[in-house]
Amino acid sequence: MKSKFFFASIKPSKNLIFSSLSPKHLSFFNSILKPNELITDASDLPRYNIDWMDKYHGSATLVLQPHTVSQISSILSYCNSNNLPVVPQGGNTGLVGGGTPVYDELILSLKNLNKIKAFDSNNDVLSCEAGCILQDLSVYVKDFGYDVPLDLGARGSCFIGGNLATNAGGKYFIRHGSLRGNLLGLQVVLANGTVLNMDSGLRKDNTGYDLRQIFVGSEGTLGIITACDIICKKKTKQQKLMVFTCDSFAKVLALHDLAKTNLNLNLSAFEYMDHNAYKIVMENIPRIINPFPNKENGHFVSLVEIISNQNIDQIIEGFYNIIESQKIFKDAVISENENQFEDLWKIRESVAESCNKIGLVYKYDLSLQIDKFDELTNVIRKKTEGLAYTTGYGHIGDGNIHINVGVFDKKNNEIVEEILEPFIFQWLRERKGSISAEHGLGLMKGKYLNYCKSPEVIALMKNVKTMLDPKGILNPYKVLN
Amino acid sequence: MKSKFFFASIKPSKNLIFSSLSPKHLSFFNSILKPNELITDASDLPRYNIDWMDKYHGSATLVLQPHTVSQISSILSYCNSNNLPVVPQGGNTGLVGGGTPVYDELILSLKNLNKIKAFDSNNDVLSCEAGCILQDLSVYVKDFGYDVPLDLGARGSCFIGGNLATNAGGKYFIRHGSLRGNLLGLQVVLANGTVLNMDSGLRKDNTGYDLRQIFVGSEGTLGIITACDIICKKKTKQQKLMVFTCDSFAKVLALHDLAKTNLNLNLSAFEYMDHNAYKIVMENIPRIINPFPNKENGHFVSLVEIISNQNIDQIIEGFYNIIESQKIFKDAVISENENQFEDLWKIRESVAESCNKIGLVYKYDLSLQIDKFDELTNVIRKKTEGLAYTTGYGHIGDGNIHINVGVFDKKNNEIVEEILEPFIFQWLRERKGSISAEHGLGLMKGKYLNYCKSPEVIALMKNVKTMLDPKGILNPYKVLN
Repeated sequence: MKSKFFFASIKPSKNLIFSSLSPKHLSFFNSILKPNELITDASDLPRYNIDWMDKYHGSATLVLQPHTVSQISSILSYCNSNNLPVVPQGGNTGLVGGGTPVYDELILSLKNLNKIKAFDSNNDVLSCEAGCILQDLSVYVKDFGYDVPLDLGARGSCFIGGNLATNAGGKYFIRHGSLRGNLLGLQVVLANGTVLNMDSGLRKDNTGYDLRQIFVGSEGTLGIITACDIICKKKTKQQKLMVFTCDSFAKVLALHDLAKTNLNLNLSAFEYMDHNAYKIVMENIPRIINPFPNKENGHFVSLVEIISNQNIDQIIEGFYNIIESQKIFKDAVISENENQFEDLWKIRESVAESCNKIGLVYKYDLSLQIDKFDELTNVIRKKTEGLAYTTGYGHIGDGNIHINVGVFDKKNNEIVEEILEPFIFQWLRERKGSISAEHGLGLMKGKYLNYCKSPEVIALMKNVKTMLDPKGILNPYKVLN
Repeated sequence: MKSKFFFASIKPSKNLIFSSLSPKHLSFFNSILKPNELITDASDLPRYNIDWMDKYHGSATLVLQPHTVSQISSILSYCNSNNLPVVPQGGNTGLVGGGTPVYDELILSLKNLNKIKAFDSNNDVLSCEAGCILQDLSVYVKDFGYDVPLDLGARGSCFIGGNLATNAGGKYFIRHGSLRGNLLGLQVVLANGTVLNMDSGLRKDNTGYDLRQIFVGSEGTLGIITACDIICKKKTKQQKLMVFTCDSFAKVLALHDLAKTNLNLNLSAFEYMDHNAYKIVMENIPRIINPFPNKENGHFVSLVEIISNQNIDQIIEGFYNIIESQKIFKDAVISENENQFEDLWKIRESVAESCNKIGLVYKYDLSLQIDKFDELTNVIRKKTEGLAYTTGYGHIGDGNIHINVGVFDKKNNEIVEEILEPFIFQWLRERKGSISAEHGLGLMKGKYLNYCKSPEVIALMKNVKTMLDPKGILNPYKVLN
């Protein structure tokens, strides 16, 4: 049977070294886990085997949901000895098929490792297990007056362990920097069951190689992250969102530059949507509020989030006067309260969802020099003219653009993809961009690794994989496939 | 001959696998380098063989100063084939003997790799070679209105390559986060001469394992850093320094907490000095200005740096009123202009220098929970009562304390060290602190690695070393010794 999507149908060949699950294996897992820590019921398996986009379909017959690191160590040690491949799974919110099996690999869910261990407000460090949901962590530290250093659309489902395993990006890179930059401690279980405690919880600790960082962004192929310590920042007392329309992308860039210079510390996020992205949200998302209903709007909408402990209105007024005098924007709105703040953010956060209304959507998550964002969107739009609806939007402040290509007619899915995918990745390669800014490689993009990494770097990646997981049991077919 | 310092005299045994430099080797180096790229003159060698503290003395007979990455690749490839050990050397400003030879290892100086390649103000990325001096980079990006994300006392001599190789910390961790968090691209030459280009220059790039990070903080033992891309931040328009005296360490912690909450984004550095540190600066540094001359001062002096784009006086006034009402401090001064700002910072930055006036100084660079800073200083002070002058100071905001122990009488040097060193490191071990916050391990602390890292982590570090440098030619006897 051909699977629903073209991408998912191009699978790497099954590795015949791996064993399939036998009654003997099952009896071992039963000996170290309680009955409710094993899932074998056919009706329960699909939500672990299939990703949330319904794009990648595995056929695991066993899901393990241990509660302790020691169980995970025993599981991996056994799997390693018995050539049983394992897919670590977090909140299953990934976009590149990294968290579901390709064949019948055993699924190891981190959902029961969900204890928040401590928050140290002297040192601003949150310590928790890998299965904690990002939003729960956010709510937890809010009581201490802090923000976790990451926010993204999947916050209500994704696990912090998965965030770290994929080095998740999100919208507050300007404010917090990269997640890896905010990581202090990490606990990882290696393929052979060895538990690595790299949990200093100290901001500065220059005692040897930083092995934590190899695991961040390794997508579960080098070890399973079981716990972490991360730096949180004190919340600011005030936040507002300014939304602007601009009639050229050059003006978006000018607005970004003026925001960096004039808002500086007070700039916490800078996002943009092109006309197509804005329009599709307005037409498809119920109860969305259009802040620019009665005017001829510019082609580009920019969101500028401002945070401050004092005088936020004065900061906003000063900035507004500067950009108004330079005629950077056509229209502007500013959130007056928390509800408006949320409503305006909802526009940007609804782009991905609204694109799904068209039909099949190819999502590209790309990094490149920001002055080339609109050029690339237009190149793709031209390439798919009449066949698809193309939206460009994303994180200007982070150099990360998302381009969603929604194909009008199912029969054109494969045509669009076969032409478009290699074209986009080649275009980026020539401009030193990245084919995966924040989603990772997973199953989807592993085969394009050489578009972004040199042969020498790929060779070293393979050596690292062999060193840590010589039998290749951890998340096979992903990243290096 | 016993060397000047006890520490430097405890050398690991010489590795007999290594070759010594022969005329044949020299003739190869002459064939790929110009005459002015080789130093063999006995009168020129000491400044490369001896560290700036005159503590570590190597006996290299050859220093290579190549101008290109391709030369470095040829040098390492040859050294690897011929078992010739190599010490990469930056500005030679390290404090733990990491940058000088232990025996007669060849020295590879990065000083001629000093090109600033570009600054991209759209994407805020500085690209430069490893031999650039930190201060030169700082001056360069200042013209674009930016700060480099690192500042430390050795700024006028240290190289950015050395900063990365040691994951240097410094005083602006609060503002910029860790150097590794601001690293985007890295070029490294491996022991076998392979050049790894990991130079994406992109903020978000999740395409495979982040191999850059293994090299950051590896102190030249895994590869030689030759170029980098780092994120810079726009300068703020205003900066001021507030200096407070507090009569207890608990009040310093309260001040720190109030600064985090109330200054928040506008807090860029938070440093402290205890009474001994403040006093020795005032008594020993010429032309230093004492801002608290005529009063009975509190025991602790805290420096709070505030940055803002607008209304800095209003921010300061608001903060001052809060902490005054809570009776946190005894006296306070605030810089009125750039000169005063520099003069006040000079007090804090002169502690290390002023301690040298006592005699031999043992410098401890430690990370631990900030509420234990003063307890540790007092424990050490008690332990060395009558024998030494102990100062506690450092980066409260980063959890990094420096404790300098100046021994009064030379004849007690070894007694103090032999008793003190294992005691301090054991004390820290029991409290999950770090024996090296920002200086690294080098030759000095490699033997204490097991105080901070578990056997499993050390085993993996050794595997990484073997994978990247199987013959161990890169900076031998350091980190893992």
